[in-house]
Amino acid sequence: MTIKTITWNGKSARILDQTRLPAEEYYLEIKTIDAMAEAIQSLRIRGAPAIGIAGAYGLVIGARSIESLSSHEFKAALAEMARRLTETRPTAINLKWAIDRIMGVVKQSENDPPALIVDSMEKEALRLHDEDIELCRRIGIHGAQLMQENPISILTHCNAGLLATGGQGTALSVVYEIKKQQRSVEVFADETRPLFQGSRLTAWELERNGVPVTLLCDNMAGHLMKSGRINCVIVGADRIAANGDTANKIGTFTIALLADHFKIPFYVAAPYSTFDLETKTGEDIPIEERKPAELRQIGDNQLAPENIGFFNPAFDVTPNHLIAAFITDRGVIRPPYLETIAGSQLKS
Amino acid sequence: MTIKTITWNGKSARILDQTRLPAEEYYLEIKTIDAMAEAIQSLRIRGAPAIGIAGAYGLVIGARSIESLSSHEFKAALAEMARRLTETRPTAINLKWAIDRIMGVVKQSENDPPALIVDSMEKEALRLHDEDIELCRRIGIHGAQLMQENPISILTHCNAGLLATGGQGTALSVVYEIKKQQRSVEVFADETRPLFQGSRLTAWELERNGVPVTLLCDNMAGHLMKSGRINCVIVGADRIAANGDTANKIGTFTIALLADHFKIPFYVAAPYSTFDLETKTGEDIPIEERKPAELRQIGDNQLAPENIGFFNPAFDVTPNHLIAAFITDRGVIRPPYLETIAGSQLKS
Repeated sequence: MTIKTITWNGKSARILDQTRLPAEEYYLEIKTIDAMAEAIQSLRIRGAPAIGIAGAYGLVIGARSIESLSSHEFKAALAEMARRLTETRPTAINLKWAIDRIMGVVKQSENDPPALIVDSMEKEALRLHDEDIELCRRIGIHGAQLMQENPISILTHCNAGLLATGGQGTALSVVYEIKKQQRSVEVFADETRPLFQGSRLTAWELERNGVPVTLLCDNMAGHLMKSGRINCVIVGADRIAANGDTANKIGTFTIALLADHFKIPFYVAAPYSTFDLETKTGEDIPIEERKPAELRQIGDNQLAPENIGFFNPAFDVTPNHLIAAFITDRGVIRPPYLETIAGSQLKS
Repeated sequence: MTIKTITWNGKSARILDQTRLPAEEYYLEIKTIDAMAEAIQSLRIRGAPAIGIAGAYGLVIGARSIESLSSHEFKAALAEMARRLTETRPTAINLKWAIDRIMGVVKQSENDPPALIVDSMEKEALRLHDEDIELCRRIGIHGAQLMQENPISILTHCNAGLLATGGQGTALSVVYEIKKQQRSVEVFADETRPLFQGSRLTAWELERNGVPVTLLCDNMAGHLMKSGRINCVIVGADRIAANGDTANKIGTFTIALLADHFKIPFYVAAPYSTFDLETKTGEDIPIEERKPAELRQIGDNQLAPENIGFFNPAFDVTPNHLIAAFITDRGVIRPPYLETIAGSQLKS
């Protein structure tokens, strides 16, 4: 695992610019909160846990730039920065969760001078990042224990790998753990239109880490499942409601419905920070709508006429009844989710 | 309908090169059987009915080039040409059907000198093309009668429009007919990976013909249906088995399963020549597998790493129970298909 999605160097964050993959492995030095907001919004860094960490570091960078303000001015400006970062991507709860956590530290140390508050914020951001590495590892271990087939063939959608987290991923952490246990594992990766996170990111990181991977278009998953070559589906999540309804990359719901049809277990792998008990059901999750250009062109290639409508939601909601289990850092959660999610003390 | 997918000018065929759409409306003059085989294989012309017509004209062009051979040599060479054209695309039955029909004329006029045989072939190819225009028109009328919602919102996959036929399309013929009746109709078009027939062709021809069209990625159809904005799905077909199992563009099966889940009627529009009573079920339909490059790059844009596997079937099979009805030139066919397809005398 030589690839580092995000690292902190004391004053700035270094991120792997994922919009340039797979052609180029290019790292960006993020020195301002503006640059971090742009990096999150433009998906240079993406994936629910990773943007939580990016948001936390972004807020520290922003706070450091205003630490010479009076305590009162500092706090007002910081609250505005927190709001702004939280709004860069509306669907993933981890971003809000991470920002809230850093702001919690601000509240605890509110009598300190701003420079000391920023020191505390930085420590908390580093702790959050370290914790994410550990959460990913535990998700991998719980998932690998759940999946006893050998060899095992796993379908995944979008990228819930090391590129989506501070650690070794959520869904793909399970894959890496199975491989570490020297069991035979292969992955089928949906390319994931419109931004090709499957082709550009999942296929790239699996190939770099020696896991056999086969790419398919999103619309081929049904035909693949019918062929009998898939043991299970594992995906990540951007937000999980109290009843288990799960927002994830657009297309996830369709894959879950197909898996249900073919009686293939469909698993969601996510850390506790992705569960949002304040969101009662999937109906309450805001779905980000992105730009028409993502569908209209790829590089210089025009794919569609100009004067037409475009429908481009970035996420969809998979209803709880299609999910066989959640693989979390605290263990595997089974239905009935309304009870098991509340009872698992995920927020403790 | 000023766009002509394919026209015959007495010695050669002119086709609209669909690989250049939507950026450029470029017509190719096809003067040799090699050029026609290449055009079919490279999808410069595509769509089950259109490649039937293209195959028929291609065979006439080939036959004309060998009409000075002895009768015996002519027939042997012609049989080889017919075999070669039939094999350019294995899934759509219309290609084989059209070639067989032209070869039937050869058999009927086998005592004529080659030049006269070719004259008969040419007449039959023109008849087949004229007939396709009429089949499309009738499909449109039957479909428009079936769909009484006003306004009506239709989801389609791939391109089953005028670009896929010699006439005004199969699935989209229904749309054009509804519009002609001055009823309000809008279309949602799946972009249809990997070759974007939805973006490049369906959106383009609908926009050119004044039908409001909204583009979406294939993986967004579930989220769209859930929103309640779709009244029905209409797609074309590449081959329909005796029991109603239907081969069509990859992803069709998934759309049908989603439509079933949301209780949205799923219709297949096709002329009688797409039904293949010799194919008992979908299991017997050969599925063309295409090149990895279609998934790996778009123009100069590399989408995926080199050293991975690629899964690229061009078609899938939708099981009969997911299909609400077939809209054919002979009328609407309802389940139970094993009886109604056989009883509809589609091959008469």
